[in-house]
Amino acid sequence: MITSFILIQTERTKITDVAETLADVDGISEVYSVSGNYDLVAIARVKDNDELATLVTNKIVDIEAITKTETMLAFRVYSKHDLDSMFSIGL
Amino acid sequence: MITSFILIQTERTKITDVAETLADVDGISEVYSVSGNYDLVAIARVKDNDELATLVTNKIVDIEAITKTETMLAFRVYSKHDLDSMFSIGL
Amino acid sequence: MITSFILIQTERTKITDVAETLADVDGISEVYSVSGNYDLVAIARVKDNDELATLVTNKIVDIEAITKTETMLAFRVYSKHDLDSMFSIGL
Amino acid sequence: MITSFILIQTERTKITDVAETLADVDGISEVYSVSGNYDLVAIARVKDNDELATLVTNKIVDIEAITKTETMLAFRVYSKHDLDSMFSIGL
Amino acid sequence: MITSFILIQTERTKITDVAETLADVDGISEVYSVSGNYDLVAIARVKDNDELATLVTNKIVDIEAITKTETMLAFRVYSKHDLDSMFSIGL
Amino acid sequence: MITSFILIQTERTKITDVAETLADVDGISEVYSVSGNYDLVAIARVKDNDELATLVTNKIVDIEAITKTETMLAFRVYSKHDLDSMFSIGL
Amino acid sequence: MITSFILIQTERTKITDVAETLADVDGISEVYSVSGNYDLVAIARVKDNDELATLVTNKIVDIEAITKTETMLAFRVYSKHDLDSMFSIGL
Amino acid sequence: MITSFILIQTERTKITDVAETLADVDGISEVYSVSGNYDLVAIARVKDNDELATLVTNKIVDIEAITKTETMLAFRVYSKHDLDSMFSIGL
Amino acid sequence: MITSFILIQTERTKITDVAETLADVDGISEVYSVSGNYDLVAIARVKDNDELATLVTNKIVDIEAITKTETMLAFRVYSKHDLDSMFSIGL
Amino acid sequence: MITSFILIQTERTKITDVAETLADVDGISEVYSVSGNYDLVAIARVKDNDELATLVTNKIVDIEAITKTETMLAFRVYSKHDLDSMFSIGL
Repeated sequence: MITSFILIQTERTKITDVAETLADVDGISEVYSVSGNYDLVAIARVKDNDELATLVTNKIVDIEAITKTETMLAFRVYSKHDLDSMFSIGL
Repeated sequence: MITSFILIQTERTKITDVAETLADVDGISEVYSVSGNYDLVAIARVKDNDELATLVTNKIVDIEAITKTETMLAFRVYSKHDLDSMFSIGL
Repeated sequence: MITSFILIQTERTKITDVAETLADVDGISEVYSVSGNYDLVAIARVKDNDELATLVTNKIVDIEAITKTETMLAFRVYSKHDLDSMFSIGL
Repeated sequence: MITSFILIQTERTKITDVAETLADVDGISEVYSVSGNYDLVAIARVKDNDELATLVTNKIVDIEAITKTETMLAFRVYSKHDLDSMFSIGL
Repeated sequence: MITSFILIQTERTKITDVAETLADVDGISEVYSVSGNYDLVAIARVKDNDELATLVTNKIVDIEAITKTETMLAFRVYSKHDLDSMFSIGL
Repeated sequence: MITSFILIQTERTKITDVAETLADVDGISEVYSVSGNYDLVAIARVKDNDELATLVTNKIVDIEAITKTETMLAFRVYSKHDLDSMFSIGL
Repeated sequence: MITSFILIQTERTKITDVAETLADVDGISEVYSVSGNYDLVAIARVKDNDELATLVTNKIVDIEAITKTETMLAFRVYSKHDLDSMFSIGL
Repeated sequence: MITSFILIQTERTKITDVAETLADVDGISEVYSVSGNYDLVAIARVKDNDELATLVTNKIVDIEAITKTETMLAFRVYSKHDLDSMFSIGL
Repeated sequence: MITSFILIQTERTKITDVAETLADVDGISEVYSVSGNYDLVAIARVKDNDELATLVTNKIVDIEAITKTETMLAFRVYSKHDLDSMFSIGL
Repeated sequence: MITSFILIQTERTKITDVAETLADVDGISEVYSVSGNYDLVAIARVKDNDELATLVTNKIVDIEAITKTETMLAFRVYSKHDLDSMFSIGL
């Protein structure tokens, strides 16, 4: 499973709309509205880089009210939880 | 459940040590080494603000090789998953 | 009581209008026009994170002349004053 | 009454010490540990600019573990509360 | 006397117009077009904070071609000159 | 008369020392401790560029507790005051 | 052979279009969509500076959906591969 | 002779037009299109500050496709060349 | 094949040493010294994310004279060249 | 002839020393101490990229008091002057 954090700025009044739209996109596991410099943090959990590429450069760019994104690829995960099975996505 | 993202910069050679130490801290559910401007992203999932305060201003500051942190509090979550029960932490 | 600082940039000529509108919003205890990089600092004092989330991601985003906000959640407070009773908001 | 917000970065492990020290300084009404780019936000409420100058350029600079400060002077306040009497400081 | 430095960015072709308009505003003692990141530096010399507040949040915001301002309040002045009498403004 | 603004950051506890030292330097007409990102603003009023060059690249660099400076040359001044005669420096 | 890296930001929905257009431009050897602050990284491999100048200041600027570019000229290359012959471009 | 470097950002497709227009302006000795964060670097070599002021705050601002400038005044020059005579401009 | 760009800052005098060391690391296909804000750009071409993770969070961090890195993962590549076979690394 | 601008920050008290040292380096045609964010601007005028590479990554890095450099390669020059012959360097 490949995990990525996508930091997102949206148009002022569209934070909730974008969050709801994103949460329905395949590959997006959670979307949070957050304090600080960004409006949303989306966590993508996908099978491989190709799916991540489609997600970031095709699906997300089509969501209009997004004004800026910054994607951080997760290299390794360290956790008490067994995240793969928790978020088992038919690998 | 209160979720927070803690973006972390560490000393150059201590990325893995800090990640492993953090993953064992109560309240930290996952730690990822990431691409981009930061070295690690830790996800805190705690009962209330008080526990978050203790985590950020006491526990994490004591981890020596951390050079900078930026905490983003999650206001709302949008997800297909039932995160509360997945990460049920005896609320 | 949960306290947050919301740093706000507004449209050039709307500083006073936004300040007055904000001061009437439930959960906003004080609004200051300030020197420096931001135009206003609003202090939110609310019951719980849910009320803070509603304030930041619903109420404040609807105030049109706001161009940028940055929310800083207060973890702990240190003061000679008994702020809870001073700002008692029926906890 | 003159109000100022002092955004403060401290040495990693000294956040709580600095907050406690600051809260005892004359003219400082509240100190908060916060999320985001800064570690603390101190609110100064003083009689006049001279007291503010003494506070910022003499008292606060002597607190060793502070590494950076940015002071924002409040021009006007908009609030449901009667802050002057709440924070009456023998004007 | 309270002194403040107001760093100003203007619309590309309006540097001189804004400077001349500003120089006529009560409370503005000098306006300089400057090299570097800003277009103008205005020096405000006023009686008290209230006059400074009116100047920054009412008078200056009404000057259309200004796109960004950053106000730096002067705490103390150190000078061979007797600035108060030089800029005596009927204190 | 050539005017320049020199924005200065100093070591934390040396703001007042640097201000006093600077105010005695030939060519420096006023030094202010200020709010915002810088600690001091010095105004240089000199005869010609050569004197400004000596001031910035020789005299000021020798003041030890200065950590960063940014010099803004004034191109034109707009003012009700006759600054040349007020700051007449034997041109 | 002269190599340059061109970091590119595009309009939100035009990442793929710009990448495909760029890849066909003479002198552009590879275009990658990337994570982080930029949308694309283009690698130019050309005969001499003149060809690089034409590429950057004429050809690339004509591609409409590009909003920002930052060009980094490669001084020296260190590689196990014989890049010149691999990318032999009829020097 | 007074030398200044003017770092310039232009509209995407107007780099060459602005460079050619600038090169004809009195006081501008050379204009270069450059790699990095700016599009052009113009070198002004003029008689005195007054001519520099006219150049920067009147002539250059009238060139429409310029979106941002940052002027760096040269204090001293160190060179094997006798630049004054090379760029002798009838001092 | 997974490609990544690693932007690198090194200690002032160690640019060439770091470049030569990096070029010998498995997974690093090319290292360039470059103009602009960074000193080096390394191109990693590896089999999968796991190898990329090992490269970034273990191998590269052990190269002492590196002071800062920023990794940009390539999602998709657009090129006239058949890069996979050119850089065939026994996939 | 290839021209490059090298923006340089030096240790506080070493501006003049570095300028004088640089001016003697082969390939460096002029060095200016400047106002603004940088301390010096050096203009390199060399035969080809290889000489530029040696200058930037070997000669300049060995000058100790330099703390940061940013190199901007000039693509094209627009000037009334015949710079090649003025700075003829035995091409």
